[in-house]
Amino acid sequence: MIIILKESAAPAQIEELRKNMESRGLVVQDIRGESKYMLGLAGDTSGVSEEGLQRFDFVDRVMKVSEPYKLSGRHFHPEDSVVEIPGGVRIGGGNFAVIAGPCSIESEEQILSIAKDVKRSGASLLRGGAFKPRSSPYAFQGLGLDGLELLKIAKEKTGLPIVTEIMSTDYLDIFESDVDVIQIGARNMQNFSLLREVGKLGKPVLLKRGPSSTIEELLMAADYILVEGKSSVILCERGIRTFETATRNTLDLSAVPVLRKKSHLPVVVDPSHGTGYWDLVFPMALASVAAGADGLIIEVHNQPERALCDGQQSITPALFDKLMHKLSALRETLQSA
Amino acid sequence: MIIILKESAAPAQIEELRKNMESRGLVVQDIRGESKYMLGLAGDTSGVSEEGLQRFDFVDRVMKVSEPYKLSGRHFHPEDSVVEIPGGVRIGGGNFAVIAGPCSIESEEQILSIAKDVKRSGASLLRGGAFKPRSSPYAFQGLGLDGLELLKIAKEKTGLPIVTEIMSTDYLDIFESDVDVIQIGARNMQNFSLLREVGKLGKPVLLKRGPSSTIEELLMAADYILVEGKSSVILCERGIRTFETATRNTLDLSAVPVLRKKSHLPVVVDPSHGTGYWDLVFPMALASVAAGADGLIIEVHNQPERALCDGQQSITPALFDKLMHKLSALRETLQSA
Amino acid sequence: MIIILKESAAPAQIEELRKNMESRGLVVQDIRGESKYMLGLAGDTSGVSEEGLQRFDFVDRVMKVSEPYKLSGRHFHPEDSVVEIPGGVRIGGGNFAVIAGPCSIESEEQILSIAKDVKRSGASLLRGGAFKPRSSPYAFQGLGLDGLELLKIAKEKTGLPIVTEIMSTDYLDIFESDVDVIQIGARNMQNFSLLREVGKLGKPVLLKRGPSSTIEELLMAADYILVEGKSSVILCERGIRTFETATRNTLDLSAVPVLRKKSHLPVVVDPSHGTGYWDLVFPMALASVAAGADGLIIEVHNQPERALCDGQQSITPALFDKLMHKLSALRETLQSA
Amino acid sequence: MIIILKESAAPAQIEELRKNMESRGLVVQDIRGESKYMLGLAGDTSGVSEEGLQRFDFVDRVMKVSEPYKLSGRHFHPEDSVVEIPGGVRIGGGNFAVIAGPCSIESEEQILSIAKDVKRSGASLLRGGAFKPRSSPYAFQGLGLDGLELLKIAKEKTGLPIVTEIMSTDYLDIFESDVDVIQIGARNMQNFSLLREVGKLGKPVLLKRGPSSTIEELLMAADYILVEGKSSVILCERGIRTFETATRNTLDLSAVPVLRKKSHLPVVVDPSHGTGYWDLVFPMALASVAAGADGLIIEVHNQPERALCDGQQSITPALFDKLMHKLSALRETLQSA
Repeated sequence: MIIILKESAAPAQIEELRKNMESRGLVVQDIRGESKYMLGLAGDTSGVSEEGLQRFDFVDRVMKVSEPYKLSGRHFHPEDSVVEIPGGVRIGGGNFAVIAGPCSIESEEQILSIAKDVKRSGASLLRGGAFKPRSSPYAFQGLGLDGLELLKIAKEKTGLPIVTEIMSTDYLDIFESDVDVIQIGARNMQNFSLLREVGKLGKPVLLKRGPSSTIEELLMAADYILVEGKSSVILCERGIRTFETATRNTLDLSAVPVLRKKSHLPVVVDPSHGTGYWDLVFPMALASVAAGADGLIIEVHNQPERALCDGQQSITPALFDKLMHKLSALRETLQSA
Repeated sequence: MIIILKESAAPAQIEELRKNMESRGLVVQDIRGESKYMLGLAGDTSGVSEEGLQRFDFVDRVMKVSEPYKLSGRHFHPEDSVVEIPGGVRIGGGNFAVIAGPCSIESEEQILSIAKDVKRSGASLLRGGAFKPRSSPYAFQGLGLDGLELLKIAKEKTGLPIVTEIMSTDYLDIFESDVDVIQIGARNMQNFSLLREVGKLGKPVLLKRGPSSTIEELLMAADYILVEGKSSVILCERGIRTFETATRNTLDLSAVPVLRKKSHLPVVVDPSHGTGYWDLVFPMALASVAAGADGLIIEVHNQPERALCDGQQSITPALFDKLMHKLSALRETLQSA
Repeated sequence: MIIILKESAAPAQIEELRKNMESRGLVVQDIRGESKYMLGLAGDTSGVSEEGLQRFDFVDRVMKVSEPYKLSGRHFHPEDSVVEIPGGVRIGGGNFAVIAGPCSIESEEQILSIAKDVKRSGASLLRGGAFKPRSSPYAFQGLGLDGLELLKIAKEKTGLPIVTEIMSTDYLDIFESDVDVIQIGARNMQNFSLLREVGKLGKPVLLKRGPSSTIEELLMAADYILVEGKSSVILCERGIRTFETATRNTLDLSAVPVLRKKSHLPVVVDPSHGTGYWDLVFPMALASVAAGADGLIIEVHNQPERALCDGQQSITPALFDKLMHKLSALRETLQSA
Repeated sequence: MIIILKESAAPAQIEELRKNMESRGLVVQDIRGESKYMLGLAGDTSGVSEEGLQRFDFVDRVMKVSEPYKLSGRHFHPEDSVVEIPGGVRIGGGNFAVIAGPCSIESEEQILSIAKDVKRSGASLLRGGAFKPRSSPYAFQGLGLDGLELLKIAKEKTGLPIVTEIMSTDYLDIFESDVDVIQIGARNMQNFSLLREVGKLGKPVLLKRGPSSTIEELLMAADYILVEGKSSVILCERGIRTFETATRNTLDLSAVPVLRKKSHLPVVVDPSHGTGYWDLVFPMALASVAAGADGLIIEVHNQPERALCDGQQSITPALFDKLMHKLSALRETLQSA
């Protein structure tokens, strides 16, 4: 529900209305249009009477929002959100950023070498898995906290802010202090306890779409984070599960313009997991940007054939460099009239 | 990998071999066939030499298991597993059990009334959601610990063991002490941290298949629980996500005979979530049993039209009673030659 | 749109109204309830004024049918349809029938041997592919008209009516004269030219659901046949395409009660194509009947390991015989109170 | 199977080998590499002995092709195919073409107006549906032969070659004489009788991927056309059916680089059907080209809000013009180093 206020509404009146609504357990969001001031109400509004609200003389009108997501929706925040990341990196609202790095952190030498390479090519953030969610309990599960330490060294040496996946609430404090962007993996997109806890940290969160989650469900998952009122969210399309087996997943690039229409949150694409094959990463990265993505997350490995995880879908630093040049030219063309 | 021992193998020899393997980080499982004794090795066996093993004179031969799941597979446990639940209830290996109750626990009166009804009709376990995973943060999230207390009252009054869903590691100790069968919901099937923690509790776990998880992935998720060596697992088919919209999910009943072929674990079916409509529950419950299910989990509500959650897919106690009679006749027919 | 007439409506009035509607290009269907007489209008009714109709004093009221299918829907035909097949076989409305035979007709000896076996076990119809739709042009395409001749011999020798697939409009006249039930394969479910032509023949049609067709689309495809006003239709669930690869298709058994609710047409299930594995056919055939199917279509081959097509999913005559006994007991149990 | 010949092989020897293979019912395809000459054998090669072939002294070696498709595969034709269309239009091998026009032909004025507009903006071919495959028999089915006449008028007036869909074998001769590119719709991708007949016409065929067809099945369908030896094929990705409902279909853009890797045939994308919404057409058309498509097929309507079919997914001539400019700049950027 959105309450559109008259221009004449006094700050004290607005404040009183806000408190009234919050006392009913609702989340109240400020929405400022060019000349309008609005309050967005998320939560169970079934007890709020539209007629009652309209009786206040400083209320212009009341609008129901039928979408099941609220805080992530354009209705509640008409302008593009810009997510600010330590180190001066920004994503969204015209700011484009590439996150690059290996699937798993394997050694100091490996992560440092890749970090330097991707930085030189223009990546804005470094990714690397310390805790790895693997379908099989017998597969390599990541280096854990040791991996995170190596990632911090790479950050120190290159200045790149770091992105890594959180898999449980066990290390919330460590992620809060050490990680710049906290990734919620596709398998945990509906791990609601985790979403809520991460939402309290006040950090940027990279939220990956579940392989069988609809776009609506992705936005409701974002709302679980946003409703805590502290963290910002970057959405990530990374492929959905379909009958097609020629690719690991089916990268749903239409989700990019759909998300940008429905939501104010930045949208990045992961063509590495989205396709599962290194030689598809290049064309699909270009296609993602042409479709309107605000950023990319790309697996880069210095020795893909020896990677402990997902080598098949990782590109070399050399190919990454070539891709960054092409992306740059492409973005220039797309932005020009 | 499975090591098949000669009949002449001495217990001390077997014990030494077991320790040798465990020292490499492998999980060793005893497998006793009618006249054969075997050791199943789960974990990274790439460092174990088949030739080396066959040089022991008490080793008959070595068999690779190509399936990515191990402990849940028939290779590692040829006989049906029977899961024992406090209160004398057993599921699997010819033991059939029906779990019934409301989607959410709403009040003492509600849960008690339903518990008595389903017990009278022959249900073996009582289900009821205290913590509810909801796609939207604005939907009813369950009564939480208060709900669990009400469920315990219903258990006390009826003697029915209780099944309820765990959503995070926050209340592991409470679930350990109070709950008879811990349910892992479909959205958490690949919440590997939760699987591992629940696997350490030594309790029966009802593991629901994720809506876009393959049968192989379900068995690998079961392995995450079993590899901790303490808890037992009941598998649950509850519908997969497809393009069809006439039902909430597509109940994949073929998964029942497939799972029974590949795995020794009991398989139950949830026709309530699997279809989403109360009038499909009756025929699909019958079909589940005809397909070979070891049990059912069915949503029963005394006032479905007023249920706070999933009323559309809940049946009344009266229809449940009718169903139980039909199921009983059906099982008799199926078992007779 | 359905026009519900008053009891006082005179035959001549009804006839005039019918002609009026037909002159607008609409298909008019008689619907007789217990005490009500109705006319169902299928086609573009946007030009028909409800108010205009209600001004006739013999019209009780007018009902819009929002479902996109009409003639196959229960609204237009509240009672179960019974499809009559030459040889005294009936399907639907409580009449159960099993169609059995090989995937492809391979030789006179093969089809005769199988036909005799399945008849002895109680099959009501003989199936056998003469024209085979194969994904690859390099795979065995069936014996064509020669195969049809062999099928006719088997019919002559056993008395079983025959079911075989039509793949194009080339042999409409031959199918009309020689085949008892014309099968439209899953790949041709939306070959609308073929549906229309077959609809003109006045024969029972076995319409298989396309692997990615919704239940609504299946019913609209049935309408393409029914709208020609001559042929009757038997619907067939044969598995849909999903991400699961443990089975050839995902047999959507919930479609059985859904179709029986929405439509008056008989519903049969094909567990052979639906699962793709012979050892799943037995349990899924039982499950189909428990779900409420009016019949089954089952691939039976005397030498499955040598079959030219789909041997993996064919059962032997011996197993078919065992299945028929079990089905018979199962149906008795289901029908008894 | 591919027979690689020695450079010393004499034309007469090759010819004799070809005839030998053709006499076994195989389709023999010439494959000329830079310095190698090869014969591709499609069909049932199980009776061809590799050893026997290698005994010929002009045979270098024999290579099995494990892919189920042959003639459409890169193995059989390493270079990109260029499809030549009357009017000097070429698609494939670096030649890019845009097909534009309305979903359905509605009137002379409509088709002429749109044809002139899209030509002015740079479209190479005119599309327009005369025979429309509609899920419902009660929906507008197209103007049929009258529509085709109008399309011919538009061709005459603008010089644009025409593309339209064939739905049955009834009008093969008319399509042969009047239509420049014959479209096989998604629902008929596995209408094998139609594929074979169209394959005999010697015309370019636009083959749309079925909504639940794998990439392999699309290529096997192309083989059904190619095996007749006369027609050329353009592949078309137009969206697959998944669980996502925010778009009409899920446009599988990864299929573009996958098809270009596996096949030599040109690949075009239909973002209109692929997404179902006009405002997604623009970004997804750009993304298609960035992914490597050889062309696009786009629905353009002068009054989308009044279109008799699929108005929701049609763009206006003005937006089409803007798109063509953007595409042109994009292609230049992609081609430059």
